[in-house]
Amino acid sequence: MTSAPNRATLWGRILVDELAAGGLEAVCLAPGSRSTPLTIAFAEHPEIEVFSHLDERSAAFFALGRARRTGEPTALVCTSGTAAANFHPAVIEADQARVPMLVLTADRPPELRDSGANQTVDQLDLYGDAVRWHAELPVPEASERTVRSLRTSAARALLETTVSEPGPVHLNCPFRKPLEPIETDGLESVPDEFSETPAGRGRDGAFVETRKPEREAVDTADIDSIRSVLESAARPLIVAGPADPATLSPSQLDPADVVAVADAIGAPVLADPLSNLRFGPHVAANRSTSDAQTIYGGYDGYIDELPTPDAVVRCGASPTSKRLRHALRDADARQFLLDPVGAWREATYTATDLVAAEPGAVFETLADEFADTNTSTSTSTSTSTSTTSTTASKGGWRTRFAEAEHTHWTHCADARTEEALESTPFEGAILASVFEGAPDPATIFVSNSMPIRDGDRFGRPREADLTVLANRGASGIDGITSSALGAGSATDEPLVLVTGDLAFYHDSNGLLALERCGVDATIVLLDNDGGGIFHKLPVEEFDPPFTSQFKTPHGLEFDALAELYELEFERVTPTEFEDTYRQSLASDGTQVLSVEFDSETSHRRREELDEAVRDAVGADDD
Amino acid sequence: MTSAPNRATLWGRILVDELAAGGLEAVCLAPGSRSTPLTIAFAEHPEIEVFSHLDERSAAFFALGRARRTGEPTALVCTSGTAAANFHPAVIEADQARVPMLVLTADRPPELRDSGANQTVDQLDLYGDAVRWHAELPVPEASERTVRSLRTSAARALLETTVSEPGPVHLNCPFRKPLEPIETDGLESVPDEFSETPAGRGRDGAFVETRKPEREAVDTADIDSIRSVLESAARPLIVAGPADPATLSPSQLDPADVVAVADAIGAPVLADPLSNLRFGPHVAANRSTSDAQTIYGGYDGYIDELPTPDAVVRCGASPTSKRLRHALRDADARQFLLDPVGAWREATYTATDLVAAEPGAVFETLADEFADTNTSTSTSTSTSTSTTSTTASKGGWRTRFAEAEHTHWTHCADARTEEALESTPFEGAILASVFEGAPDPATIFVSNSMPIRDGDRFGRPREADLTVLANRGASGIDGITSSALGAGSATDEPLVLVTGDLAFYHDSNGLLALERCGVDATIVLLDNDGGGIFHKLPVEEFDPPFTSQFKTPHGLEFDALAELYELEFERVTPTEFEDTYRQSLASDGTQVLSVEFDSETSHRRREELDEAVRDAVGADDD
Repeated sequence: MTSAPNRATLWGRILVDELAAGGLEAVCLAPGSRSTPLTIAFAEHPEIEVFSHLDERSAAFFALGRARRTGEPTALVCTSGTAAANFHPAVIEADQARVPMLVLTADRPPELRDSGANQTVDQLDLYGDAVRWHAELPVPEASERTVRSLRTSAARALLETTVSEPGPVHLNCPFRKPLEPIETDGLESVPDEFSETPAGRGRDGAFVETRKPEREAVDTADIDSIRSVLESAARPLIVAGPADPATLSPSQLDPADVVAVADAIGAPVLADPLSNLRFGPHVAANRSTSDAQTIYGGYDGYIDELPTPDAVVRCGASPTSKRLRHALRDADARQFLLDPVGAWREATYTATDLVAAEPGAVFETLADEFADTNTSTSTSTSTSTSTTSTTASKGGWRTRFAEAEHTHWTHCADARTEEALESTPFEGAILASVFEGAPDPATIFVSNSMPIRDGDRFGRPREADLTVLANRGASGIDGITSSALGAGSATDEPLVLVTGDLAFYHDSNGLLALERCGVDATIVLLDNDGGGIFHKLPVEEFDPPFTSQFKTPHGLEFDALAELYELEFERVTPTEFEDTYRQSLASDGTQVLSVEFDSETSHRRREELDEAVRDAVGADDD
Repeated sequence: MTSAPNRATLWGRILVDELAAGGLEAVCLAPGSRSTPLTIAFAEHPEIEVFSHLDERSAAFFALGRARRTGEPTALVCTSGTAAANFHPAVIEADQARVPMLVLTADRPPELRDSGANQTVDQLDLYGDAVRWHAELPVPEASERTVRSLRTSAARALLETTVSEPGPVHLNCPFRKPLEPIETDGLESVPDEFSETPAGRGRDGAFVETRKPEREAVDTADIDSIRSVLESAARPLIVAGPADPATLSPSQLDPADVVAVADAIGAPVLADPLSNLRFGPHVAANRSTSDAQTIYGGYDGYIDELPTPDAVVRCGASPTSKRLRHALRDADARQFLLDPVGAWREATYTATDLVAAEPGAVFETLADEFADTNTSTSTSTSTSTSTTSTTASKGGWRTRFAEAEHTHWTHCADARTEEALESTPFEGAILASVFEGAPDPATIFVSNSMPIRDGDRFGRPREADLTVLANRGASGIDGITSSALGAGSATDEPLVLVTGDLAFYHDSNGLLALERCGVDATIVLLDNDGGGIFHKLPVEEFDPPFTSQFKTPHGLEFDALAELYELEFERVTPTEFEDTYRQSLASDGTQVLSVEFDSETSHRRREELDEAVRDAVGADDD
């Protein structure tokens, strides 16, 4: 089949055709001239969903959020110049959070670069080490060899986003005029007989079929080592940090495996809200204060008051809870860090063993082994002295956690009564309600800074299937709204975004995607007029410049912003929040539920509650 | 004198002290924790003006706009992580537009990097080749050698922003806790006897006084060559493109020199609106259609209908007018390109001679020579056959330009009558009014895309002292509002921003600086609901995807955005514009004057007018 009216058009079509054949399903486009061949090819492709954005920074975070939710790469297209630099923050987050992303930047051809012409930025190395692979495509040519090169580069780019550690890939795409699909007689024309499909292709579908390695068998010695340490430990602990996107599939943990292992050895599972383990059907409905409890949350409030573990298995990224990180650092324990690509991801350097293995595979293998042992012991109890049947109750080790957690939630509940909230409102109460009241299933995106910390501490484990996401790679407060809406674009589940006012301001442009990309959300805005997190830091004592340069109150009334984007906006008090939240979740469209707080009052309340819980747990412990 | 409560505080103070001693006058701060030592030191320094921003992208463009207006570097501070990547678009514009800028990014110390801890982005090489110099400061230490290093690095960083080609410089600044000015006993303490000022300093003021080279004498052979070509040319032309920021001082053109040279040789001066030559006292009040006219604007409308020049002297960046660039490309002429640092900045590769010399110096030398010649010829007319006295009238060469320009402005005036605007409104009329009605003096910032093109074509030369600025380095539509407000922060002149709706949306966050940084502006919003510029391109014929992916209408009603930032907002028709504009300029506060257009109608009108002017000029020319 031929063919295109000119080479740029040909190029765009082949590239997009190959990306679709390779499985690409969605692209975020920002308008521009130089990118015309890509834009038209994507817009015309029947199998790729197109999301149009006007601010490239928001576009990139939208792509990031979508890919984080799906585990599959989202493509991004922009024109030449500073447009591409606006992608940079999200590219960095994608790098650090292992989110697949394919960045396609249009560029001028070499003869127009560095010439004083407009928008001739050196784009080749724009994202530095943040991308897994970057390459410049050849200038469009109608030759078989370059078409082979183009199709192969497309396949490679897609593969590189996920083959090892998932992340961003950058293709710089030079185009000569004409950029539009108009006939041309000159050098840029395409010969009539030219075939877009090189000879000797030998197959349908993608030009190069790429296959990722199957899950590798876990080294038996590693399993034996982990098992033996866990079984002989008096205080074994499993810590699940923020999960990688599903791209590291099949490394996703099966919660049943983790629970089976934990129950077999009597280890509490400290489940980060972003771990995919804090919420879900595996969380027992009857969370009694007993040794039977497996999954724990809110430990930021009580971990310091409990004995330190003597053996730890960790998976996922560094936990959100700083107190947990410090407890792990201070524990005199063998600590296994499981990472699918063998990367060091721990802020406090506590691992004694780095196991380059898929956590899902490790837990599955361990669970199978324990099941075999149980089966064999139950069928022939007399043949061996079973260790596993006794490890499930290690001197009340899990009971300590269960009681401490119970104390924590009891105090939280007391602080969330109508009376308590009226006298001392605090932001944590909203996070507690957000998780508690979320429908099953739901996708909840939580902003960095205080919301994710409060979510960690006040988000109680539930049986509901909640997918909780945050940008914890570089942990910026940029692009939060767009990331949430991108995640929402990939699911029919109700979408909740919990954000502070600074993050809401920072990505105000992201709200355009609600209508433009057909996403509905319940946006919970915790408005404390500035950076409440700075009250946590010693700089609070130095005012000035504390208020003007750290807390930075802005005085913005966000109802006007909601009006700009034609969203429903409601100011609710902390005591009204639960009802309004429920109504919003039950209705269509997007509602912004703005709950105003004084950040200092809220922070003092957090501290009081913290102290009360620790006192109570410490007292229990004496 | 000692001393600080800890090393981070010591470091921040010394760095800021040295930057102030080196002449730094302003800094834009974005809140963050890791940057605390810098933030506090800047906030406490009595001589540095501090502008607080919440969105780092807007902060960086604000710094850019301010530096563009002052010619002096503005510093930028942010915390670690993606915050620094948000500076990237403005860093690229600063690179390409030769704007001095000092970027200070706080960072974690080496032992916390690449560790899975939050916000540990590889910042060292974040901006690639876009910075003139980048370095990592030593981790704070209380030793004389490192303090010498720190003070010297500060001096060097400032110098590098301006010493050769002005541009951005990046210092990555690692800090260990404590970051706040709190006493510490440990490793991070500062010995009592420690002196912040190393021994052997030998002077007051800066630790290292840096001096830039004085204006170098221009090579006599170059001058002779240019002079001889210009004098012997039948159709000499001077083209002044967008000016460099004043940092390349003393290379700023003295308009009187340019006029003197142009008049001596009978060359028209085609003055870009960004050249500092289109507006000012040197523009003759009586702009008759005669050979006496020196300064020309609006040539994008008529240049194609005039004979091509046979000798050209160019200064500044590549002209805004594409038709002028093409006319220069197609001219069979000797073309001298004057550039202070000998850089090639011409999109169409037309220079025959690249002269690495300050344009100001070249014109001054030429003007002096011509003045000498005139003096000698007027005192002794019989001694020589003067060439200069006759070159001023080269067969009506300038008259052709004067008549063509007159035709252009006459047609524009006809298109701007109330009746004409009511029947066929077009955006160019607003740009004409913006320049015509601006007070003397005023600072006018014009957005990329259509506004600057319309400003070039419809902005008529005036005697008023108008400083016209635009981001023509990479020519993005990002950061326009912030750049304008940054420029406004540096002057007491009335500030006008002319922007389209896409650019206004893109940097909506920039509006926060109006109140926060104490700037007032008249914001002229040309709202055609999307990317009107795409009507200029052939892609207009392909719909879909033209409307959805190129024109990208958003339907935003910006009065709500004005309400968010508590600005006055007025919708005005094109015929009401002049009165409302005058009122806004005469009043305090910020007014957004929104003029709505249908971009297609407006563009068709532009084309009609273009055709009419070209027909008329072509007919005159026959």
